[in-house]
Amino acid sequence: MAPIKAELVSIGNELLAGITINTNAAYLAKQLQAIGIEVKWITVIPDEHDEIVQALRQAKQRARVVISTGGLGPTPDDITKQALCDFFQVELVFHPQVFEDVQSFLNHRQIALNKVNRLQAVIPKCEQVLRNQQGTAPGLYFKRDDTHFFFLPGVPGEVYHLTEKDILPLLENIFNLKKITTHLLRTTGIPESKLIEKIGDLVEQHSDFKIAFLPRFRGVDLRFTLPLEKEHLKTEFEHFIGQVRQRLAKYIFTEQEKELEEVIGEILIRKKLTLSVAESFTGGLIEDLLTNVPGSSAYFLGGAVTYSNESKMKLLGVREETLKKHGAVSEETVIEMVSGVQKLFNSDCAIATTGIAGPTGATAEKPVGLCYLAARVGDQQVSRKFQFGNDRLMNKRRGAIAALELLRRLLLNIQ
Amino acid sequence: MAPIKAELVSIGNELLAGITINTNAAYLAKQLQAIGIEVKWITVIPDEHDEIVQALRQAKQRARVVISTGGLGPTPDDITKQALCDFFQVELVFHPQVFEDVQSFLNHRQIALNKVNRLQAVIPKCEQVLRNQQGTAPGLYFKRDDTHFFFLPGVPGEVYHLTEKDILPLLENIFNLKKITTHLLRTTGIPESKLIEKIGDLVEQHSDFKIAFLPRFRGVDLRFTLPLEKEHLKTEFEHFIGQVRQRLAKYIFTEQEKELEEVIGEILIRKKLTLSVAESFTGGLIEDLLTNVPGSSAYFLGGAVTYSNESKMKLLGVREETLKKHGAVSEETVIEMVSGVQKLFNSDCAIATTGIAGPTGATAEKPVGLCYLAARVGDQQVSRKFQFGNDRLMNKRRGAIAALELLRRLLLNIQ
Repeated sequence: MAPIKAELVSIGNELLAGITINTNAAYLAKQLQAIGIEVKWITVIPDEHDEIVQALRQAKQRARVVISTGGLGPTPDDITKQALCDFFQVELVFHPQVFEDVQSFLNHRQIALNKVNRLQAVIPKCEQVLRNQQGTAPGLYFKRDDTHFFFLPGVPGEVYHLTEKDILPLLENIFNLKKITTHLLRTTGIPESKLIEKIGDLVEQHSDFKIAFLPRFRGVDLRFTLPLEKEHLKTEFEHFIGQVRQRLAKYIFTEQEKELEEVIGEILIRKKLTLSVAESFTGGLIEDLLTNVPGSSAYFLGGAVTYSNESKMKLLGVREETLKKHGAVSEETVIEMVSGVQKLFNSDCAIATTGIAGPTGATAEKPVGLCYLAARVGDQQVSRKFQFGNDRLMNKRRGAIAALELLRRLLLNIQ
Repeated sequence: MAPIKAELVSIGNELLAGITINTNAAYLAKQLQAIGIEVKWITVIPDEHDEIVQALRQAKQRARVVISTGGLGPTPDDITKQALCDFFQVELVFHPQVFEDVQSFLNHRQIALNKVNRLQAVIPKCEQVLRNQQGTAPGLYFKRDDTHFFFLPGVPGEVYHLTEKDILPLLENIFNLKKITTHLLRTTGIPESKLIEKIGDLVEQHSDFKIAFLPRFRGVDLRFTLPLEKEHLKTEFEHFIGQVRQRLAKYIFTEQEKELEEVIGEILIRKKLTLSVAESFTGGLIEDLLTNVPGSSAYFLGGAVTYSNESKMKLLGVREETLKKHGAVSEETVIEMVSGVQKLFNSDCAIATTGIAGPTGATAEKPVGLCYLAARVGDQQVSRKFQFGNDRLMNKRRGAIAALELLRRLLLNIQ
C-alpha cells in the first residue's frame, strides 16, 4: 500500500515575514507520520484571497489530505472564510452550535459577549464542524472528490487540541489506518558519524526496516519504523532493535520521548537521592534545564553559578592555591567545586563545570571551548576534560548535556 | 512601485517530517524584506526530482526572485542537481574554480581530499557560481526570463554567508534597490493590546508609514517602515517615531537589535557595577540568559539557585521566622533573598525571584504562577508581585524577563 499523501497549507503574513517560525507544520507532520500519512508538501502563503484559492487548488491535485492552519481569526471580515466559500462553492451560514460554544467559552472566562462573537458563528457550510474548547474559532472539515480538507485556527494550543480530538480519529476512520510500529532509541555523547560506524553493517543487513538518525541538541535519536506491509516481520524487527541496543548500550539514555534531565530526575527519585550543581562554564544552563522538569524540587536542592574566583573560594571552598597553581579552568578546580557544592547543599549527588565558553578568555595553553566537568554520587566521583568549539551558546549546551550524562552514567554504574 | 515578489523553496525530507524547523526561510524572509523584496510564498518539498521541478515551475510563474535552500549536498548523485539540469535545460559541467575552493577548504581543515570531492565541483551550468567559504557546496545563480533563481546548501551558517556576500548585493544591483528606512523600538513589560491602546490614535493619523507589532518572548517589538515611495516624508516619519517614543518611554529598553540581558550588561559596564542573582521561581534561567552574553564575566559575579528552604537560609541568610510566618513565596522572603545574595557575592546590584512555577506546589492562597521579584542597586531596592499563568516554562521565562526589567528600571531611575 502506497502511503497516503498529505499537504499542509500555513496561512499567515507573520510566517512570511520571518517573525513567527512554523512550529504548527512540524507538529502536524510528526502526528500524520505516526499514523502512516506522509506530508509531501508544505506551503506558506499570505492571508490573501487569491493565494489561498490557488494553494488549495494545487494541494487538491497533489494530496488526499490537506490541513490548513491560521487565517481563521476572531474577526468577522475574515479573508480566509470568503476564500473557502469561493473555493468550495458554498455560502456562509450561522451555526447555532458554534455560537453556543463561543458563549460558554467566554462565560467560563467571565468575558462579556460582544457583537463580533455572534459573527464568529457564521462559517462556510462544511461537512463537519470541529468544536474548539480552547478558543472561539472552530475547525472546519470539507471533502471534495478524494481529498479531505481541514481548516484550523493558528494558535498552537488550539491546533494540538483539534488535531488530537478530531482530525487524527477522523483520518484513522476514513483511511482505515493502523498505528505504525516504531521504536525510539535516544542517545547522547556520540556523534552521528560514530553511530553509523558502530551499527552500519546491522542497518544494511536489515533493509526491510526504516531507521532514521535524527541529530538533536541533546544527542542523536534513532527512530526505527516497521512499514505496514512488513508487519509479519515484527519478531525480526524487535531482534534487530535488540542488536542495536546491545552495541550502543551506554549511549542510550532512554527509549521514550524524554529528555536527559527528566531521565536523571526519575533515577534520583527512584534512588531517593538529592542533587546540587556548581556552574561556571555552563553559567546556569544545567540548573535551568533541571528546573524545567515539573516536580524537580523533590530532588534538586539548588546550586551556585560561580563566575568569579572569589565566589568559587567563598561558596564552594575551592582553595586559593589550587586556583593559583592550576587556574580556574582545570581538573583540580572542578573536583574541588563538585565536592564543595555537595557539602554546601548537603546533597547526595553533585555536578560541576568550569571552562572557557568564549569568545574571549582563551590563553596560549587554554583555548576557547576547553572545559572540565565533574559528577559526584556519595563519595564516588568522576571528572572529564572536553574540547568543544568556538560558539559560546553551543559550548554551554554541549557542556550542560555532557555533565548531565556524566552524572547519569555514574548513577547507573556505566563505565 | 509595486514590491518585488519572492518565493522560497525549501528542499528537505527532515523539514517535512517535522524534525527540523525551517529557520532558513525565516532568515531569508527578513533579509529580503529589509531591501524591499516581499516573500509571498514559501514551499517545503521533499528531495525528489518531480517535486523540485514542479515547485520551480510554479515559483517561476509567481515570483521574480526564487531562493532555494537544501538539497545541494556533498554527495555526487544528488537529486537536486539533476532536477536543476532538467528544469533549466542545462548539462552538468566540471567547474575548476569550485574544485579549487573545495581543495583549499579541506586543506585548511587538514582533511584529505577524496574521490567524492572532485564530483562536488561538477555542477549544473549556470549564470554564476556563488563561492562558498564555509562549506564544500557552492551556491548557484540562474536567470530565466524575468525570474532570478538562487540555490544554496541547507546549513544555516552557509545560507547566511552566501546571502550576505552574494545574493543581497546581486539583487540590489539587478533591481536597483535602495535600503528601506526602518526603525525599531523594542519594548517589554506591556502587552500588545495595551500598546495599541496607548498609540492607536498616532498610528491611525500616520497611515503613510507602516508599523508592525511583533510579540516576542522578551516583549513586543515595534518596527516602523518608511515605504520607498514616501522617502520625501522622512522628517514626518522621524517625528512620528519621536511621538511614539515619548508615549512608551519606560517600556522601551533598546532601539537596536539587542536583548534585554545585553542592554543590562552595557549599563553595568558603563556604570562599573557588578551583579549577582538569587533564583527560586526562575530556577537558573536568569543566570543562563546573563551568561549567554559574551564578556558577561566582567560584571556578573555569580548567583545561587535556592530551591530548598534550607539553602535560602544557609546561603542567603533568609530568616527562619520569615519563612515560617510568610512562606517561601512572599515579598518578605524575596527581599531577604535579594539583599542576602548581594552580601554573599559582595556585588553592587542583585536580583531575586521566588514563586510557584507549577504545575504542582499551589495552595489555597498561593496559586500556580504567583511570584515575587526584587532588584537592588546599592541600598536602593524594589520588589513586585506578579501573577502569571499555568505553564511552567512560560512562567520561568516571564519571571526572568520581568526581574531583569525591574533591575533595568532601577538602574536608570525609571519609575
